[in-house]
Parts: sequence; C-alpha cells; structure tokens
Amino acid sequence: MKQIRLGIAGLGTVAQGVLHIIQHSGAIIAARTGVQLSVAMVASRTPKPEVELLGASFSTDLNDLLVDDSVDLIVELIGGDGIARQLMQDALAAGKPVVTANKAVIAAHGNDLLNDNLSAPLRFEAAVAGAIPIIQAIRQGLVANQFQHVVGIINGTSNYILTAMREEGAAFGDALSKAQELGYAEADPTFDVEGIDAAHKLAILLGLAFDTPFNFDDIFIEGITSITSEDILYADEMGYRIKHLGLARQTVDGLEARVHPTLVPKQQLLASVNGVLNAVLVKADAAGDTMFAGPGAGGSATASAVLADVLEIARTWPEISELHGRDGIAAKRILPVSEIVSAHYLRIPARDEAGVFAQIANALSSHGISIEAAIQKEPPAGADFASVVILTNVTKESAIAAAVAELAKLPQIAGPIARIRVESLD
Amino acid sequence: MKQIRLGIAGLGTVAQGVLHIIQHSGAIIAARTGVQLSVAMVASRTPKPEVELLGASFSTDLNDLLVDDSVDLIVELIGGDGIARQLMQDALAAGKPVVTANKAVIAAHGNDLLNDNLSAPLRFEAAVAGAIPIIQAIRQGLVANQFQHVVGIINGTSNYILTAMREEGAAFGDALSKAQELGYAEADPTFDVEGIDAAHKLAILLGLAFDTPFNFDDIFIEGITSITSEDILYADEMGYRIKHLGLARQTVDGLEARVHPTLVPKQQLLASVNGVLNAVLVKADAAGDTMFAGPGAGGSATASAVLADVLEIARTWPEISELHGRDGIAAKRILPVSEIVSAHYLRIPARDEAGVFAQIANALSSHGISIEAAIQKEPPAGADFASVVILTNVTKESAIAAAVAELAKLPQIAGPIARIRVESLD
Repeated sequence: MKQIRLGIAGLGTVAQGVLHIIQHSGAIIAARTGVQLSVAMVASRTPKPEVELLGASFSTDLNDLLVDDSVDLIVELIGGDGIARQLMQDALAAGKPVVTANKAVIAAHGNDLLNDNLSAPLRFEAAVAGAIPIIQAIRQGLVANQFQHVVGIINGTSNYILTAMREEGAAFGDALSKAQELGYAEADPTFDVEGIDAAHKLAILLGLAFDTPFNFDDIFIEGITSITSEDILYADEMGYRIKHLGLARQTVDGLEARVHPTLVPKQQLLASVNGVLNAVLVKADAAGDTMFAGPGAGGSATASAVLADVLEIARTWPEISELHGRDGIAAKRILPVSEIVSAHYLRIPARDEAGVFAQIANALSSHGISIEAAIQKEPPAGADFASVVILTNVTKESAIAAAVAELAKLPQIAGPIARIRVESLD
Repeated sequence: MKQIRLGIAGLGTVAQGVLHIIQHSGAIIAARTGVQLSVAMVASRTPKPEVELLGASFSTDLNDLLVDDSVDLIVELIGGDGIARQLMQDALAAGKPVVTANKAVIAAHGNDLLNDNLSAPLRFEAAVAGAIPIIQAIRQGLVANQFQHVVGIINGTSNYILTAMREEGAAFGDALSKAQELGYAEADPTFDVEGIDAAHKLAILLGLAFDTPFNFDDIFIEGITSITSEDILYADEMGYRIKHLGLARQTVDGLEARVHPTLVPKQQLLASVNGVLNAVLVKADAAGDTMFAGPGAGGSATASAVLADVLEIARTWPEISELHGRDGIAAKRILPVSEIVSAHYLRIPARDEAGVFAQIANALSSHGISIEAAIQKEPPAGADFASVVILTNVTKESAIAAAVAELAKLPQIAGPIARIRVESLD
C-alpha cells in the first residue's frame, strides 16, 4: 500500500476538516484507493490550538513543511496571496506536490505556478465551488468535449442573499445582515457581494474549459449590491429568477468572461439552485448540458475536494506526469464588455404622462433595440411616477449602454434606470 | 505523445458518436491529454454501413478485435448480455483494456469481470446516466466520503413520461406514445417503464458508493405504469412532484436498494429535473448534498463518457494499476422490501358516507401509522365516491402494506388504493 504523508499549512476549518476525514475515514479511503494517508506535520503561524493532529508534529514556521523529508505532499490552506503563493512556489520547486483551495492565487498566478517547468503536480479542485468536483468534470469527465459555455452560481453568499430577498421580500441590506449572522457572509462582505470571489473562480473555469491562460484581469465584474426586491418581483412576474452568475462563453469573436446579476428563466435547472448552494452548468458539444450542484464552501465540504486531489496525486504521481499540463494552452481574445451580447431587463422610473412608453420604445429602437416583453403599471398611490419594466432583445452591450444613457436624459424619467442582463442559457 | 488505437465493437449511434468526436476533436483532445486517439478497427456483425471509419479496418467478426495487435483498447458498444459479455471477458483475459456502456452486463456480471485477477482495466462511466460523470464523481471526486444515500432519476424515458403527464395532464398511455414518437421510448418500453433499466444503473451506483458487490437481484423494482395524472395533481397540491427514482441508502440495519415512483418535495433540486434529463443526488458525510444532472442517453452524450474512460485508461495504464480494484469490497446486507422505511402517499377511493375518514384514520392508526396531511374533496358530480388522499408518517413497509390490505376490505372503499412512497431526501 502506498503511504502518503501530508504537510498541512494552516489550521482553520478546512484543515480541521481534512484532519477529521483522515481520522474518521482513513481506513475506508485506504481500502478504496490503496493509499494510506497520514499527517506528518501541521504548520500554522498562530500557536497550536486544541485540535487533534493525528500524531503530526506542529510548527509555526511554514518553511518546516519544505525541509522536512517526512512531508510527501503539501496541502496549502492558509489562503490569501503573499505567503501562500510563496509556499506553493517553493514546494513545487522542491519537487513536492501541492494541493490548494486558494482561488485567488490560482486565478492570479496559476499560469506561472503551472508552467512548463512544473516539477511536481499542483491541484486545486477545492478552489472552485467547494465540494463539487467541477474541475475534475471539465478536465476528465468531459475531456472529449469542446465547451460552448460554463455558467456558474459560484458565490454562495450572493446566492443566499438573492434567495432571501426573493423568498422573504427582504431588502439587500437586511438579507446581507442575516447572511452575516448565519456565518454565510464575512464582516467585510466586499469580496463576495461585489463579485470578486466569483471572478476568481470564473477565471479558473475559463482557463480550464477554453484551454487558455487564467485571466482574472479581463473579466467584467458586477456585484449584487444594486439589486432591489422590486427587481426580483418583476423578474418573477416575467418568468425569471435573478442569479449572480459567472459566465464564460465561446463566441465567434472571442471569449466572453463576465460576472454579474442575471435574469435566468425559471424553467432552467440553474434557476432552482437556492440558498448557499453553488452550481455550474456546462454546455459542451458532445455531452450537451450538464449541471453540477452542491455546497460551495464549508470546512468539511472543501476538505472533501482537497482530499480528492491528494488521492489523485497519490495514485498517479510520480509514475504519471501531471494531468493536463498547461503547455497545450493558447491565449485567446477575451471580449471587452462593450462587445458582449446579451438581452436586458430595464426598470425605468417614468412619470405618469401620456406617450412615455412610446418615447422609451423610440429611444431603444433608435439604437436597434426591440422590446420583447414589458410591464407597465399604474403609479402607486400618491406617487407621480411608475416603473416601466422592459425585456429587450439580444443586443450588443455598447448599444444598450448608449440607449440607457439617452433614456436617462428624457425629462419623463424620474430616477436611475436599473439594467440587468438576461441569459436564456440555451 | 501516447498513441492509443481503439477497436470498436458495434456501429450504432454511440459508436458513431465516438468516431465523430475523434474526427472532430482529436487534435484538441491530444493537446489537453497528451494522448493521440485513433481507430484501428471497427467490428460489427451487420455489414459495413456508410459511416466514415477514419481509416479503421472493418470486420464482421468481433474476435478480430481480440487478435489484431493494432488494437490497444476495446470499446464495447454492442449492448445486451451474451456476446458483449464474452467479448469483454476475452479482451480482459488477453490483457486488453475495455471501456463499455453496457449497464446490463456490469450490473449482472461486473463482480466477475472486475475480479482480483483483472489483467487490464475495465471502465463503464457511460453505463450510468449517459454524459454525466457520476461514476468518476463517486470514485474520485467524492472518494474521501462515506455515502449516506445515492438517489437518481436514471431513466430518461420514465422521467419524460412523468413530466409530460404533469405538464400536459396526459394519461400514461398517451405520454408513452408521445415518447415513442419522439424516439425517447422503445417500441417495447418494458425495460424503461417497468424500472429494469433504472435498476441496472442503481445496482452499479450501489456497489460503487457502498463498497459492496453489484447486486441487481436484491433491488426492489416498481415501474411507473400505475401512476395516474390524478396522482400527479394531488401530489402537486401537497407540494410534491412524482419522480421515478433509484435509491440506495445506508441505514443502521443494512442497505436499502429500491427503484420506484416517489413523491419528492418540490423545493428539492431533484424535483426540478424534467424531461429526458437524468440526475443523481449524492448525500455524503463530508461533501454534503451534491447533484449531477445531464443527458442520460443519446449517441454523442454517451460517447462523451466512453471517451472520458478511454482517455483515463490511456493516461494511466499500464503504469498505474486499475483505479479502485473491487478487492476492497465486502458483501453487505440489502434490506428486504418489508424492512424499507418510508412515508407514503395513499389515494383511497371512498364512498361519500359519514365517518369514512375516521375509519381510514383508525385503520392506519391500528398499524401505528399516523396522517401527516390529507385532502378530502366532495365527490365529482354524479359520482358517489371521492378520493381521500393521505400522506403518512415514515413507517415500515410491512406496516403500510398490512394497513392498506385492511383498508381495501372496508365496505366504504370503492376501488383499488394507490400507494406511492414519499422521500424528503434530506
């Protein structure tokens, strides 16, 4: 039986999840895989907490993981850029395989870390969508496919907030507060609600599915902070749910790579993925539409993905060179946001005057945009304006942006216009 | 670059899908995996059709695949038991790896084929749920988990029929006819609508998830032929969808393994999997609930899974011994149906007399069964009986069977009682 001795960097919830699984399921894992896992060392900059380390030594110096010969493989669970990245780089240079859950480092520096001189495998299943084996699905299960799009609900915090807003009619701020109380959102929620976290994950999915370098910088990012419960209700009335999506798509002109709130038809399975769940929908030429859903975060769920990587390396390395070295990849053009093509939801606060709707329709039409569906209601009691809600046809971002700028100048428009992209995901 | 020359047995839609993918995507697959696929021989008992064979030789003698040294790996796509099984056995004995989509052979003979003397790998991702990489998810992505249940919509024909019955209010027979017209059901639909096909797949999932031999014979099987659109409407009114499920579950007393129509709460993601789609929901101790959905059949979707297996073997064999030899497995007790524990939906045609509901409740209560929810409506105009619809608590199969037998004898009961299991899938 193969023996693999782990060196674990970090001792947070994911590291504790890894330790728990090895203790609790090490025997069954060994029976299944022929790999006996043990933990040689745990290193964490904070002093040793009251956690069962399964006989591992403990160090507050991460470099001990590199120099200790009893460590076969390093599991990086510190998070963040900086130190974590240095540790991975040093480990790989020293020929020690690395497994990480660190999406920020892979999204920003994965191209360098996974370069042709890789002397040991680096795997990062846990970096995208937690427990869901989506990277394995793209790289192995669907490897014979050419991908058309990869679309994911890949930030559980945002999905929780949008779900709570819809189910409870809560305002964004209240739903966020509740998410924070439940531990689904950080005290500073910026990374989640502004879409940065989702963009890190999308950068990784984009690079893998489209055989191209990871490219975080060219992703268009919009968070959920401007979504109102009014928008959610109107979307519902028109047959849609609002989801915060990361979307990577092959078009004839190049790749679309964007993170933003999106109206998704209710009958799309992805629209039924609620709460903190994550899900990734993959459209591929041979397999068709497949969807993968599950917990996107949490100590044990993430540890499940970490150990899948560990065991895959244990099984194949060093006999087999790393799966999918990134040397077959080629840089591809990522479309600037102005060239993105999408349908739109518009919510236009308009004064209750004759001919307003026609004026709006004309303004849109002058930019080549047509109206697919609309809701226009009486103004609420006491108000002199009402929301005109419109679904447009599929149009270029530059056209809709220009049309909305023009609309905003009309004297009949009583406030800021909400604009949300609509995707059929067909 | 590794060269792998396939020998393909059969030339139906899946084989044609494999040929198409190799022709269309061979270059991108090679860049991703370092494996150059080619087809050395196609063997089919029927004469060569007008299909591009990519330079492969053609034979009507399957044995040519075994003796030809230019064939590195055999892809078995004949289907059925008999000849297909013999070919696989001979190929493995001769040291040639085999990839198959043949669920019947794996479910019934997989234990023998995958025995300890395996001299070459045998993989069968395509045998369960078509394009969905569910076997890889269980064996690799979730390998560090202990599984609590694996529940699947694993027969697209049945799911199509039940979906059509709900969406169009169609009767079973009409929905089946439509499925046949669309090519979603065979002329003889028995294997699909009676649950045999789903049971083959469940036997495989059960064996893999619970580290136990494949066991088709001990699976409880019930098809969808007795489901009425009335049941679907009542289920809807109570917050459920009726789905045909294969369910494998670990209980303290043993494994449950059953295939039957099931009421599933609408808010369960699985309940939103409609039409011919398949989906498998996995509950595991570390990963939590993950779900995998996609096309369960079709030439190119199945070919996608076949080639994933081919490429995994190409990448790792012969350097690495086969993944998860079945030698770590142990026989486990499969519960007889009488010991299954489940809630139930009952539709009881009862005469419109005072005290009928109380009598039904008493009969259930005398078997320790309580009522969680009920619908009792006025009889339709002109009828002297109405349906009493009941959701019971979770109870042993033996108790509900006895209670229903007793109910059927009551003079107030006007016809056969419909009984459908209910699963929360929590």
